Amino acid sequence: MKHLTVVKIGGNIIDHAERLQAFVKRFAGLQGPCILVHGGGAIATKMGDRLGIAPNYVNGRRITDAETLEVVTMVYGGLVNKQIVAKLQAEGCNAIGLSGCDGGMLQAHKRPVRAIDYGFVGDLNEDAVNVLLLASLIELGLTPVFAPLSYSEGGLLNTNADTIAQELAKAMSSQYAVQLIYCFEKAGLLADPADDHSVIASVNEASFKTLIADGIVSGGMIPKLENAFAAINAGVQKVSIGQAEKLDELILGTSGTHIVQS
Amino acid sequence: MKHLTVVKIGGNIIDHAERLQAFVKRFAGLQGPCILVHGGGAIATKMGDRLGIAPNYVNGRRITDAETLEVVTMVYGGLVNKQIVAKLQAEGCNAIGLSGCDGGMLQAHKRPVRAIDYGFVGDLNEDAVNVLLLASLIELGLTPVFAPLSYSEGGLLNTNADTIAQELAKAMSSQYAVQLIYCFEKAGLLADPADDHSVIASVNEASFKTLIADGIVSGGMIPKLENAFAAINAGVQKVSIGQAEKLDELILGTSGTHIVQS
Repeated sequence: MKHLTVVKIGGNIIDHAERLQAFVKRFAGLQGPCILVHGGGAIATKMGDRLGIAPNYVNGRRITDAETLEVVTMVYGGLVNKQIVAKLQAEGCNAIGLSGCDGGMLQAHKRPVRAIDYGFVGDLNEDAVNVLLLASLIELGLTPVFAPLSYSEGGLLNTNADTIAQELAKAMSSQYAVQLIYCFEKAGLLADPADDHSVIASVNEASFKTLIADGIVSGGMIPKLENAFAAINAGVQKVSIGQAEKLDELILGTSGTHIVQS
Repeated sequence: MKHLTVVKIGGNIIDHAERLQAFVKRFAGLQGPCILVHGGGAIATKMGDRLGIAPNYVNGRRITDAETLEVVTMVYGGLVNKQIVAKLQAEGCNAIGLSGCDGGMLQAHKRPVRAIDYGFVGDLNEDAVNVLLLASLIELGLTPVFAPLSYSEGGLLNTNADTIAQELAKAMSSQYAVQLIYCFEKAGLLADPADDHSVIASVNEASFKTLIADGIVSGGMIPKLENAFAAINAGVQKVSIGQAEKLDELILGTSGTHIVQS
């Protein structure tokens, strides 16, 4: 089976021009077929502020109203996606930017309203990814670059980039031996959040539960790890989390936290 | 030789939600391989106004400064492009949105500074189009939808959509029998601008010069027609100009103005 590397790059890197440029150079240098999924970063919020669109919160959760959907479509699907693609092209990587609507790549549905109506937020369908078309693009030598936007019934929906990366990695595992890398600003899962040298080298679901119970893993790291476990339990060969600056070492397995099946 | 239809849709249609929706439905119903090129419309200017970006004019010509380039990248490459693609998907057309950077599709250079520095405006290179890759996407059953943005050296450039349509039609003529249709708000080239029934059925370069001399063709129609002649003189099989609402008749040749080689 051919190898495929799916890399997710977080918003914190995108927000820093120099870190993004350095990341793009490293990503363009990777061997073999790759897919990049990018988060949004603070640019959409800043753009919303400049446009006078007040952030809309319900019970502390950010809601994607119609105006916010327009902003994220512009900023994630236009500005951020095209800037990353243009930078990758300059580094010799034949990137192609995709939002969920393009080629019907990422099919989703509006999140059902339960306690909260999240608005125009998409949950990916079970069979979300247009696997054969995506594989065809890769076979043409293209490197797909996904914005965090999925497609449903004639429109786009705001969708978590970690989840998109996970679903892409899972779906493409029918065609490729897939390695999934979550790049963010930290060196991995840290035993001591203040100490970048306290990286926990590997974690399985049992040790993950202990880390949560001990208060070592909390907040946004919990859904991130849950995404990682969902991927490793669904046929993705390798999953790791670590620093964008150490992409090569993450792929080799010499840096970051590696997600291990129970 | 297989047929390919290249359609350019103007900003005036894009600015009207109902006209755009009706156009999308008609375009999605066309037979055989198609490419759509869309203009920008007034949305970018409105967005610039809302962001407090003052339009920058030199000698009456709009300049694309760095801030304006960000706005057009967001609005054309993100908002407008993805909304059209999503609408086409809903009509059963497997559209894929592309800006010039995607797949290195449209290579350009910054317009040389002569009397005016237009800023981040792209003139397409002689060999601008990645013909083989674009043909491969079409062979996969995809319908490329181009935003009016070209690529140069790691960045995007604001580029006239009529010119992009012309260059795409010319370049793809090496692989396909191409028909190029410019859709706009008028029924075609009008002998009397106030009378939509005064459509001039066909025009060649000699009659075009007479129409200019007589003051019948003026303003923005001149570069539009020049683009059309450049296409028909470079191997594009049929070129016509007419109303977005009459797309099928334009393709059949029963509506609009047809550009005829001298």
